[in-house]
Amino acid sequence: MPPATLHQVPIALGDRSYPIVIGTGLLGAASTWSGLPKAAAALVVTNDTVAPLYLAGLQKALAPHYRAVHTVVLPDGEAHKDWQTLNRIFDALLSHGCDRKTVLFALGGGVVGDMTGFAAASYMRGVPFVQVPTTLLAQVDSSVGGKTGINHPLGKNMVGAFYQPARVVCDLDTLKTLPPREFSAGLAEVIKYGPIADMPFLDWIEADLDQLLRREPAALARAVQRSCEIKAWVVGQDERESGLRAILNFGHTFGHAIEAGLGYGEWLHGEAVGCGMVMAAHLSQRLGLVDDAFVARLTRLVQAAGLPVRGPAFGADRYLAMMRLDKKAEAGDIRFIVIDAPGRAAVRPAPEAMVRDVIAHCTA
Amino acid sequence: MPPATLHQVPIALGDRSYPIVIGTGLLGAASTWSGLPKAAAALVVTNDTVAPLYLAGLQKALAPHYRAVHTVVLPDGEAHKDWQTLNRIFDALLSHGCDRKTVLFALGGGVVGDMTGFAAASYMRGVPFVQVPTTLLAQVDSSVGGKTGINHPLGKNMVGAFYQPARVVCDLDTLKTLPPREFSAGLAEVIKYGPIADMPFLDWIEADLDQLLRREPAALARAVQRSCEIKAWVVGQDERESGLRAILNFGHTFGHAIEAGLGYGEWLHGEAVGCGMVMAAHLSQRLGLVDDAFVARLTRLVQAAGLPVRGPAFGADRYLAMMRLDKKAEAGDIRFIVIDAPGRAAVRPAPEAMVRDVIAHCTA
Repeated sequence: MPPATLHQVPIALGDRSYPIVIGTGLLGAASTWSGLPKAAAALVVTNDTVAPLYLAGLQKALAPHYRAVHTVVLPDGEAHKDWQTLNRIFDALLSHGCDRKTVLFALGGGVVGDMTGFAAASYMRGVPFVQVPTTLLAQVDSSVGGKTGINHPLGKNMVGAFYQPARVVCDLDTLKTLPPREFSAGLAEVIKYGPIADMPFLDWIEADLDQLLRREPAALARAVQRSCEIKAWVVGQDERESGLRAILNFGHTFGHAIEAGLGYGEWLHGEAVGCGMVMAAHLSQRLGLVDDAFVARLTRLVQAAGLPVRGPAFGADRYLAMMRLDKKAEAGDIRFIVIDAPGRAAVRPAPEAMVRDVIAHCTA
Repeated sequence: MPPATLHQVPIALGDRSYPIVIGTGLLGAASTWSGLPKAAAALVVTNDTVAPLYLAGLQKALAPHYRAVHTVVLPDGEAHKDWQTLNRIFDALLSHGCDRKTVLFALGGGVVGDMTGFAAASYMRGVPFVQVPTTLLAQVDSSVGGKTGINHPLGKNMVGAFYQPARVVCDLDTLKTLPPREFSAGLAEVIKYGPIADMPFLDWIEADLDQLLRREPAALARAVQRSCEIKAWVVGQDERESGLRAILNFGHTFGHAIEAGLGYGEWLHGEAVGCGMVMAAHLSQRLGLVDDAFVARLTRLVQAAGLPVRGPAFGADRYLAMMRLDKKAEAGDIRFIVIDAPGRAAVRPAPEAMVRDVIAHCTA
């Protein structure tokens, strides 16, 4: 089947603007990769799960555009989102004598995208890169908006850069091979866009969840497109997260605490965000912003999407300690993304006792 | 003696503009540090040579401005400009629970400045930082213009970011304690500004070299001020080195080859640049751009400043291999900064045989 571009979502950031291209059959088509910055060489970064599925196809499609297409295959998983693994990208670039026009391609999920993006931001102080997300989570969230980075033993994504890709290519075909657990993790970030920005989108997700879970192309296209539109709208107004952009972190303060508290890699990021959204909804309810019915509705949908709705019981102290290390914290005060009203989010502090109550209520 | 601001050089980069403040008695005066971005905490990064001389004074002067002034003392030297040492800055920031408003202060020479700047660029994707250069080289070159980074075993400054400080404070008093070898290394970068941009400045350096070598305050002030003015003028036109800024690398292509070929830390950066300028002048002469008298004049001045004028004899092959890894190389072609005419520089390729001739002629 010939490639089909179903939709293009522009990200408007002045001279750092770029398109998100959404469609089918894109990855293996040479035409997908036209019009990128000129260079002698490309480096495709991927992981050992994705490589057997898509690396050869992408390499072949890139071949007409570059004299050399190098590759580096990293170990899969959040546990490897560290300096040692990042350094393998620099090793590959330098051992191939790659110059500062070399274009990097991030073929994989959020971890590959974040690490490749940070490598691109840092190699010779910046080379172009292209996001080729192959997971639902990466297509609807992490590949868009220019957040890149690695984890530090004391905190997730603590070392990184704001660095925009030259293009994002979302090939919906790649979602077919995703394990169910990872697909559900991606749905967490899709669901997120409803309560923070677009309740009719939440209505649609609820109504068509079965089609989504069956990965019907039309449903996938709509989920990816609308998610990217909302993310593009937010990032276009606040690239460096000085304000509005923080709403995209709904569920992430509790979620990061779960991930860090258990050790990275125990829960998938999307699983932690799914559960984190339920906890943040409870907090919003206790702050008098939303009603019980809203909390129950969001909890039902998160659960129906195949995601956990109860957090691990490692104690409120540990949750709070992890949240104080969150990047959104300021001078030790934890700030939460809460739902101000269905379809609208805001950043607010919350009394510690209330947060402890929510943790006690929502953990197994 | 009360602090005296002798000069302020503005760096005009739109919303990333900042001043270079040059004077005496600045470091220990609380007023020097007014008007910086507000934060609960500061972290002073320095090394074990500079710490006993200036750390306590700076900490005391910063105390009125921040609730907490943390410090981290790194091992001194180019050999430590690596990921492991950089990570000690992240460890300090995270173990003190520093948020993303924390201001970093780079107290030391070029290595401390480059590493602190890259840590500031990367910590939580960017926190403010202030350059407090204590070496001549850092005051006239590396602290100004926003180049930050670390070395990789396969190349110098290969991993980094363009990231501008909020302020540069050059306290001329700190130059008094500089060992003669380091002071001469700094003079290499001062001399550099003459042939690339300002021959009357070169005339003055030749005439007043003795005063400079005796570190007379008036001579130091003039050298630092004029160097910063020229650098500010260049960086203001080309922040990310897409063109003009490359002229600041006069002497650096040969110089980096010397440093990398010997192993970082054998020669000081400024020593390699001094010798590299002589080699680049020879190349310019062979390209028919300058005459023998110009080469002889520059060689004499570099030598009189206490710098080497003959490169190490590790063979032309190794020089060329190291130069191909230079960030200015493109698709394997080495590009040199040459003197087009006295006072004006340009970027040009050169025939390999000619480069080999220059290496043979200029190495011991």
